[in-house]
Order: sequence, then structure tokens, then C-alpha cells
Amino acid sequence: MADFITPKEKSYTDWYIDIILKAKLADYSPVRGCMVIRPQGYALWERIQSILDAMFKETGHENAYFPLLIPESFIQKEAEHVEGFAPELAIVTHGGGEKLEEAFVIRPTSETIIWSMYKQWIHSYRDLPLLINQWANVIRWEKRTRLFLRTSEFLWQEGHTAHENKKEAKKEAKTIFSIYHTFAKNYLALFSYRGEKTEAEKFAGADITYSMEVLMKDGKALQAGTSHFLGQKFAKAFNVQFQTKTGNLSYVWATSWGVSSRLIGAIIMAHSDNKGLIIPPKLAPIEIVIVPIGKQNVKQMIMKHAHQLFKKLSKKFRVKLDTEDQKSPGWRFSEWELKGVPLRIELGPRDIEQHSVTLAVRDTGEKHHVTLEELPVTINKMLNDMQERLYQEHKKFSLEHTFYPNTYDAFKQIFNNEKLGCAIAPWNGSPKVEKMIKEQTKASIRIILSQKDYPLQGKKCLFSGQSAKHMVLFAKAY
Amino acid sequence: MADFITPKEKSYTDWYIDIILKAKLADYSPVRGCMVIRPQGYALWERIQSILDAMFKETGHENAYFPLLIPESFIQKEAEHVEGFAPELAIVTHGGGEKLEEAFVIRPTSETIIWSMYKQWIHSYRDLPLLINQWANVIRWEKRTRLFLRTSEFLWQEGHTAHENKKEAKKEAKTIFSIYHTFAKNYLALFSYRGEKTEAEKFAGADITYSMEVLMKDGKALQAGTSHFLGQKFAKAFNVQFQTKTGNLSYVWATSWGVSSRLIGAIIMAHSDNKGLIIPPKLAPIEIVIVPIGKQNVKQMIMKHAHQLFKKLSKKFRVKLDTEDQKSPGWRFSEWELKGVPLRIELGPRDIEQHSVTLAVRDTGEKHHVTLEELPVTINKMLNDMQERLYQEHKKFSLEHTFYPNTYDAFKQIFNNEKLGCAIAPWNGSPKVEKMIKEQTKASIRIILSQKDYPLQGKKCLFSGQSAKHMVLFAKAY
Repeated sequence: MADFITPKEKSYTDWYIDIILKAKLADYSPVRGCMVIRPQGYALWERIQSILDAMFKETGHENAYFPLLIPESFIQKEAEHVEGFAPELAIVTHGGGEKLEEAFVIRPTSETIIWSMYKQWIHSYRDLPLLINQWANVIRWEKRTRLFLRTSEFLWQEGHTAHENKKEAKKEAKTIFSIYHTFAKNYLALFSYRGEKTEAEKFAGADITYSMEVLMKDGKALQAGTSHFLGQKFAKAFNVQFQTKTGNLSYVWATSWGVSSRLIGAIIMAHSDNKGLIIPPKLAPIEIVIVPIGKQNVKQMIMKHAHQLFKKLSKKFRVKLDTEDQKSPGWRFSEWELKGVPLRIELGPRDIEQHSVTLAVRDTGEKHHVTLEELPVTINKMLNDMQERLYQEHKKFSLEHTFYPNTYDAFKQIFNNEKLGCAIAPWNGSPKVEKMIKEQTKASIRIILSQKDYPLQGKKCLFSGQSAKHMVLFAKAY
Repeated sequence: MADFITPKEKSYTDWYIDIILKAKLADYSPVRGCMVIRPQGYALWERIQSILDAMFKETGHENAYFPLLIPESFIQKEAEHVEGFAPELAIVTHGGGEKLEEAFVIRPTSETIIWSMYKQWIHSYRDLPLLINQWANVIRWEKRTRLFLRTSEFLWQEGHTAHENKKEAKKEAKTIFSIYHTFAKNYLALFSYRGEKTEAEKFAGADITYSMEVLMKDGKALQAGTSHFLGQKFAKAFNVQFQTKTGNLSYVWATSWGVSSRLIGAIIMAHSDNKGLIIPPKLAPIEIVIVPIGKQNVKQMIMKHAHQLFKKLSKKFRVKLDTEDQKSPGWRFSEWELKGVPLRIELGPRDIEQHSVTLAVRDTGEKHHVTLEELPVTINKMLNDMQERLYQEHKKFSLEHTFYPNTYDAFKQIFNNEKLGCAIAPWNGSPKVEKMIKEQTKASIRIILSQKDYPLQGKKCLFSGQSAKHMVLFAKAY
């Protein structure tokens, strides 16, 4: 199977698509721009859902479900919001055999429909905070799509919270942003740059957008999760006021935040190799696959041992027993490598004789002989090591491909495809300069970096020579 | 709070809606016919999802996700299917600011889009069976809607399986039907009648529809779950053939099956009372609420004990600690009764002195003093007893409101609102007779009952006097 994957070095794009199609993570659909998420891919989404959902619930959030359809007039109530989303809308004009009086849009995001409900639910400070999350599908009509990374329909979670004051709302936006970072680092093994979006790049309707940017192996940045402090914009658009503790009326403060099924694309791109998918162990739906090997005369005996081992390991790990018996061991090994299972246990007659197994590690390709007695401890260590190794490798790659150019010429060279990666540089804060750079180099400001981590120290703007306002991260973006 | 619920005896409809709105299970939305599922209601859906999902996975099914939008031409490929669904479709005519060349429908069910993919995935008997389930939203434009029971958008799961032969496909449809029954009985505490739909009532595109019908307290039947043997209809419509073991080409055999968020409506209607919701313990998101009670001077001491108890019980049960301290105990008790939590632990100064608690049972209203030592065992027993009691009560109600009329006049009296319930009667199998009865009485044939459980014994059709073909269940339907 592995032979059929285009090598990464030959074409990163083809390599990426090959992995998705061959590992059966997803498929193209007859609906332009929309994909089918196949069981192997959906299992990754289920893991993402269950881990994040628990993190949201631990911090006091509850799930709910709001209508898919939004009256067209709602989208228009917040000026920036409609400007940002209008070009991407799918519009329902007919229902039940009749033309509708008012058209509906399919939600591209749910702020407007949710705030129309919050108006009915929020009257007093006693109704706050309101901490609601929704797991849902959304549609944003896209011209150029790529499996997982950019599709017209995608799956996501969208949190929408309401607060008494600015401070609490900002704190909420940051709390969630920190959850996203923890999740990306500890589960997805992804290193990320984090910071605030510029005015030009922030969410349509936000006061502040916090974004987590992850560097892919082709040097492009992927926006992997955003958390927005919305100020009072949606409360004002939908006239949501509440009685404060002191008896005054005040507009409600808001946040919204989301991550989507594009995270699956990030995992594939960041960790996989020419043999196929590599899944970080903590995320993997299957941590270990047991592959019994043996000729006809010993098959039954081996399968018996394999079942025993499966039963024993299942108590501690997510295990799969491979019962395929038509294909060669080599074919089956390649197949499990393609699917990205972190550890493979090979169990043959000699292993059984020696009360041991052969343990193959997906990313390094190493094989170890391990006694049955040592097996659970060894598995645990190898899974943890692999998790840490994938993160460190991605971090190393990201840092090695982050450049600090000293001149605009050096900057341009990076994005001329002479180098692979992103750039950190001082910027004077001017939207005009930002626009010019994007036009000239196709690199955009992904985020404004924190001055604590990236001190300005009196630097001059690389592009204007004026005094710099921020250190910012530039990259071509997915 | 309970005062605000219209008594069931006064208006069943208002009582039902009051419970939903006051217990904050759901709310009306600004999108006609669509509801908002609020956190209290969505928590029930999450329980339904997690329990059923585990049952599907245990029987070899995997989850996937297919596009929301279906090309209009796909829906038209299966003649019965389009006839059944055309009047209920929501149509997307514009996307990304342009009129679309071909319109899309929002999925009312996904057979057509899924079978267009199965054509690409199924080539050989080795690709079968294909056992896929999808958790999704669907839209069927409804004129008359009622919260949870009938809404234009609803949440559901839809299974779509593909098989080598008729026998396996039929077996699959029955396996799932049996899962639905087990789930309804053991978790939802619902008694159901089960059987096949008539030609007139079956799913648009099915050869056989198995349906589970649940009697509500107003005497109407609710179709609570259906499993369809689809024969080769969709395989033929999408030309899905496979190479058999013997090397021939054959059309694939199919099933589809689903339950939806209307199950939440069934639970409310079947079990609740004038104080509010009653949730069967095995389904309840919260099995036990701990309500600490005490005046200002002992509050802190009581809360300390309450936290200890919460920690202890959380290891075995789904527990909530009520930390509200502004409202009176009476108000809080009513509030938890309204929300339907099965057991309430009241913890006051005297309870703590006596190393005991007061345990109140939601459905019977009984209160017991239980020592801390006996508490876990007692809780377990009371939860199990309540689960069984709710089922037995619903079964008793259903059987007492199932009539066996001997004449058409007696039959008509039932559905003239002179009696409350459904009827079982012999029928000659004629669609004309079926249609006439529906027109005259508004009662439809919900299902054909199995001859094993409901023997014909040479009975005559109640309506035509001809020899009967089936014993069938008649009811007005939701």
C-alpha cells in the first residue's frame, strides 16, 4: 500500500491527499467543496470531541443546539459580521414546496441566532454568566477547497458565552484559548505560535481574536483555533441588556470560540511520513494493534494467545486485534503503518515460545523484543515517549523554520520560496503596510506576538523604517 | 415553580409544553418550525447518544459524516423516495453570492448521498458488509410542529448498511430493531408495540419498515424508532453492484434505521407529572442531587459535609451538588422536582447529627431517612426500583388503554374521544379499507403485529367482514 503514496519530497500536496484517500480518512463528495469523513477519519474527530468536551465541561460549559437556519435579516444586524460572511453564505429560498417570504442562510457561525435567544434568556445578573457550547456543522461557501483544511461544510464546536463585565468576558476568551493550547500541545503534539489577530485579520464582529497558528511542513501556517472577545457588539445588535447588581441596565459582554475538523488536517500534515499517517498516541483511536502471524498449522494456537493478550491489554489501552488471515504479514504491517497506529505488536510462534512479543514503533520504525511481563510498562513508556517525541520534533521543525530577517529583501526571499517557513519581524502597526506586504509577498500577519515573549526593544519597523509597535508573525496561510 | 405548570388533566398539550419551557429543556426559535435545545434538554440527548452509540459499536458499526447538502437530482433517483420526501424539502438555490447551476436539498435523510458514495467504495464481497452510522441534523419542512415531537429540523442518528444478500440485510434490520427495543425498555422505561408498517405507512423507499410505537398518555401513538429493510432499491437507483464470492455481479442489499430527538418528547409525555419532568434513572444526566439545608450559622459546616458526601457518591453515581444559597429549601426542592432528578438528598443539621440523610424519591414523593453507611446500597436499590416502576407503570397504562373492539362501531367510539387509547383489530390487508378507516376515524394502522404474539385464529376483518390477513394496531399518531 505504502508504495502508492506520493513521497512528501516530490509533492507535499499530493502526499497529503494520498494519505487521506489511502488511509480512508475522507473522500471527495459529489457536492462541490464538501467532503465525506469516513470512519477512520471520523474516529479522530470523535477523540477530539470527547477530550475537548470534557475540558469544556470541567470549566463549567454546557452543550446546547441552535437551529441550522438563520433568518437572512439576522446576519445583517451586526455590520462587520455581515461584511465578513456575506460572500460565503448558502441561501435557502424554498421550503415545503413554496418560496419563502424571508430567505434563510445556513449558519456560517451562530452568533446571530444565539444572541437572538440570549435576548430572551438574559434579564438579570443572576442569569450570567451563560456558558454554552455547540457541536455542529456549518457552511461557508469556498472557491478553493482542500480535504479537511478548507471545505464548504465542516464540523466544529462553537462556544458562545455571555458575561456581566468586560473583565470576565476577556478572562473567558483567554481561558478557552489556554484550553486550546493545552489540547494542541498535549494531545495533538502540535507546537503553536499564539497571539492576537490584527484588525484586518480578526473575526468579523470581534474586538479581539486570539489565534493559535501551527506551522505545516510546507512552511505555511494553519489557523488551528480561535477565541474571540466580542465586546458588546452582538449584545447591542440584538439589544441584550441586563439588570446589574446595582440595579442599572447594561449591555452584556460576549465571547465566542471554535475549533474545527481542520485539526485533523493539521495532525496529518505535521506528523505523517511517506509510509502514511502518524497519530499522536494520546489522540489515537487505536493505540496498539496486535498482528498474529503464523503458518496454517499454528494459526489457531497463535490466535488463542493473541486473544488472551488482547483481553489483557484492553483493560489499560485502546487495542485492536487484527483478524485478517488472507494477506501476508508484510501487507498487514504496511496497512497499519498507513493507518498510523502508534504501536504494533507482532505475535508469531517464536514470540510465544519465548513468552515475548515484537513491538514496532510507528514513527521511528524501531522494533523491540519485550517479554509479556514487561509489556504493559514498556507500552506505557513507549506511548509517552512517542507523544513527547512528536511534539519535540514539531517544535524543532517550527523553530528551525522561523526566520528573523533584518531587511525587507531578506524577508521577501523567505516567501519567494527560497526558504521554507515563517518570519517574525517588527511592524509599525499600519494596516496599509500590512496590506502592501501581503500583496507583494502573499505572506500575511498571522498574529501579533506578546511583548513579554518577543520584546520590541526599540526596534524599527522592517517595512517602513518607522518605530515598531509590535513583533508579528508573518506566514503564507492555509 | 411547579404552580406554573398547567395540570395534565386540564390540558395535556399545555402541560407538555409547560414542562419543556419551565424545565428549560427547549425553547421556540425565531426560525418557524425549528426549536432550540437548551442545555437541560441537550444533556438528555447526550445520554441517548452515548448509550446508543456504544450499542451500535458493540455490534460492529462505525460512525462517519456525509454532506448536509444533496444534489436535487439524487433525491429523484429512487421513485418512491422522491414522492415521499419532495413536499418536505428545504432547497438551497444560492451559494457564495451566485445562483447555483443545480439546486441542493438539505438532507431530509441521507440514503441518496450515501449510496452515491457506496457506489465508489463497494466493488467486491470483501467490501461487505459496510456498517455505517451518522449522528446528524436533518430538515423536513413541517406545517404543524410541536417541541421535540415534530420540528422542521431535528437531530437523529441514521444507520446505512450494505450487505451481500437479502438474508443478512434483513438480519441487520432486525438486530438494530432489537437494539432500539432494548434501549427503549431498559433505559427510557418505555413499553412499546412493535411490528411492520403497512405499504401505505412505510418509509419512502423501503421494502419493509419495522416500527416501534409508544402509547402516550393522551392515547396517541408515537413512532419512536424505525428500521428499514431497503431491498436493492437504492443499489439499483445508484447502480451499486459487487462481485460475489462466485464471481458474479449482484446488486447490494441495504438497510437504514434511525431514532431522533423526538425520543425526548416520548420520555416527557410517558413519565412526567404535574410537578414537572420525571427522568428514568438510567437515562438521567443527574441521578442524585444533594441539597444542603441550614441557617446562616451552620451553613459552612453543612456545606463541608455536603462536599464530602458529593465526593464519595460521585465515584459511583452521577451526582450534582446544589450550591444555591439565596432561595428557600422548598423552592429548591420544587426546582429539582421540575427538572426530574430521580433522587434528592436533603442534608440538614439534624441529618448530620444522626449520621444520616433524607432521601426523597421523585416519582413516588416518598422520603426516607437513611444512614450514611447504608446510603450507597439504598441509592442503588432505589434507582433500580424507580427504573423498573416507571417501565411497569407505562406498560400497565399502555395495556389498559389498548382496546379490542368487536365491531366497527365500538372501534369508532374509541377514536371519537369517548375512550383514550389505541385498538387492536383484525384487518383484511386492503389499502382501501385502511384509507377509509383513517378518513373516518383519524386512526391509522401503526403496525402489523406478529402472528406469533397476536394469532389470527380465523378472525374476520372488523371493517369488511372478509377474512382477516393481519392483527394490526390502530391509533391516532403524533
